Amino acid sequence: MEAIDKIKTNVVGIDINVEKTTYAVVDIRGNILKKESMATQDYPDVNDYVTALSERIVMLAEESCGYENIRSVGIGAPSGNFQTGCIEHASNLHWEGQVPLATMLQDRLGLAVALANDCHATALGERMFGSAHGMHDFIVISLGHGGVGSCIFTHGEPHLGEQGFAGEVGHTCIVEDGRSCGCGRQGCLEPYVTPAGIVKTAEELIAQSKESTLLSEQDELTPATIIDCCEKGDKTAQKVLSQTGALLGMALANYATLMNPEAIILTGEMTHMGKWLMEPMRRSFEEHVFHNIRGKVKLLVSILNDKDRDVLGASVLAWDVKEYSLFI
Amino acid sequence: MEAIDKIKTNVVGIDINVEKTTYAVVDIRGNILKKESMATQDYPDVNDYVTALSERIVMLAEESCGYENIRSVGIGAPSGNFQTGCIEHASNLHWEGQVPLATMLQDRLGLAVALANDCHATALGERMFGSAHGMHDFIVISLGHGGVGSCIFTHGEPHLGEQGFAGEVGHTCIVEDGRSCGCGRQGCLEPYVTPAGIVKTAEELIAQSKESTLLSEQDELTPATIIDCCEKGDKTAQKVLSQTGALLGMALANYATLMNPEAIILTGEMTHMGKWLMEPMRRSFEEHVFHNIRGKVKLLVSILNDKDRDVLGASVLAWDVKEYSLFI
Repeated sequence: MEAIDKIKTNVVGIDINVEKTTYAVVDIRGNILKKESMATQDYPDVNDYVTALSERIVMLAEESCGYENIRSVGIGAPSGNFQTGCIEHASNLHWEGQVPLATMLQDRLGLAVALANDCHATALGERMFGSAHGMHDFIVISLGHGGVGSCIFTHGEPHLGEQGFAGEVGHTCIVEDGRSCGCGRQGCLEPYVTPAGIVKTAEELIAQSKESTLLSEQDELTPATIIDCCEKGDKTAQKVLSQTGALLGMALANYATLMNPEAIILTGEMTHMGKWLMEPMRRSFEEHVFHNIRGKVKLLVSILNDKDRDVLGASVLAWDVKEYSLFI
Repeated sequence: MEAIDKIKTNVVGIDINVEKTTYAVVDIRGNILKKESMATQDYPDVNDYVTALSERIVMLAEESCGYENIRSVGIGAPSGNFQTGCIEHASNLHWEGQVPLATMLQDRLGLAVALANDCHATALGERMFGSAHGMHDFIVISLGHGGVGSCIFTHGEPHLGEQGFAGEVGHTCIVEDGRSCGCGRQGCLEPYVTPAGIVKTAEELIAQSKESTLLSEQDELTPATIIDCCEKGDKTAQKVLSQTGALLGMALANYATLMNPEAIILTGEMTHMGKWLMEPMRRSFEEHVFHNIRGKVKLLVSILNDKDRDVLGASVLAWDVKEYSLFI
């Protein structure tokens, strides 16, 4: 027996999304030593997926710090349940029902594995290495291609909610009898602030507009072409983003009025739309937030690199599991 | 020195509101041994107030369990700050600025004193002895005469927020360009769900209504006369409460969609409006809440007696302070 035990200072983070699985060896300070990815959808059978993923992880570890120096593994996945270690009824993955992915991977790797919802993992990364560093009460909101995800922290811990569905800011009602949402209701925030939602707003404003607009001359309406038109001074394009920002700002203000957080941290592709979205969002936020906290809640954008954020968050999750623990 | 130390099993709870101050000796199981009240507004000078209150508390204790058996004191007050023990800039009390009431009372009584916002104290009472017993994630919402107050619990602790203003569900925006609110904004929940708000809705519907309504025959429109008209089958009166319930249900659904709480607990005079308000509220709640938690969040009314609830909550706060602690 050594006089002083040696600790392992590296973990593996895994971020699963519908298209690809990214996995990386990450050290104690959040440095990514080595990172790779594989196609999630190539494996309709989850057993084949786990076999391939575990072999790749062992290779990746051997090529970086050595497998014997990996402490544990963290996974962020859509519909991941932190309590059970399962992916549960993920609507956009091949695997149906309840998939005990943490246990399956643990059995192959012989390492402790933690699994959580992807937003939960991302928020852990923001707290450890990003814009929420040192904070206890905040929300991380991902404004992504497919929808709005979020994770709330209170008292320094993720607030997952009684059934594990807390943080559905994208499904708060903000427009009476508004747009139909994928969830089956009307007027939720989500169908207004996704890329598809912005394009829909652009189409609506083109139809209503009596002035000519550059938007109607585009081969394809996308967030990027809308931004282009904004920068060329097109008023209709600017109105698309100011309307979107106003709705987003109001939804965030209602969150802040309820929770009085230290900060709201935005991530995802919509955060790259610049001042055309962000300035109207901030104005609407301050206008709608409870007066006692006006000007006091930080509205931040993630400082982490888009390509690393989610896998880094998953690596933070790895530290949340005891080194020798096992899912029963 | 005794072999076994004796613990004190009684505390004093004090509930302060603009009109009166209620104080009671309460035992470890929430039994109120003796309770009295005095007029808050008789004391424009807070020093006179503290002198009178401390003398009355000593007398009350002597008449019940004996002063030597009082462990500590808890106070629930408007704009009470749990961190500082001060009442801070209460808009509806005589005393201006920051009033260090906990320290002042502690100096007179020689007992440890805790002070918090009145809603915070009420929620502690619901958790210890009421509808939130055994719960960790819930909100207590007081639908009272003067407005909507609330206190959020997460991870089993009150969530007070970064500036101490969390829980302003009454000031979330629910109607675009809606009614003016006392807070200076438009469309907040509060001006729709107070007694004055309901009366205003009734006046609006009377003005719009083409049918005759019993409402226009009342000497005075009050929540009680509106309920009377509902029970006599008056459609306009029923519409007043169903519109109010629908807005309240939507605001609660947005809270639940964000926080996925175990329960929402309603207190205050509006909870006595019966099925005419509660049934439309429940329908609207289930219609607007995120589908994954539909039917799963408990909507409860306080099981505590209206007259005891707030002072009981304040007594629970008394147990939160160390027996021999002192505010600096």
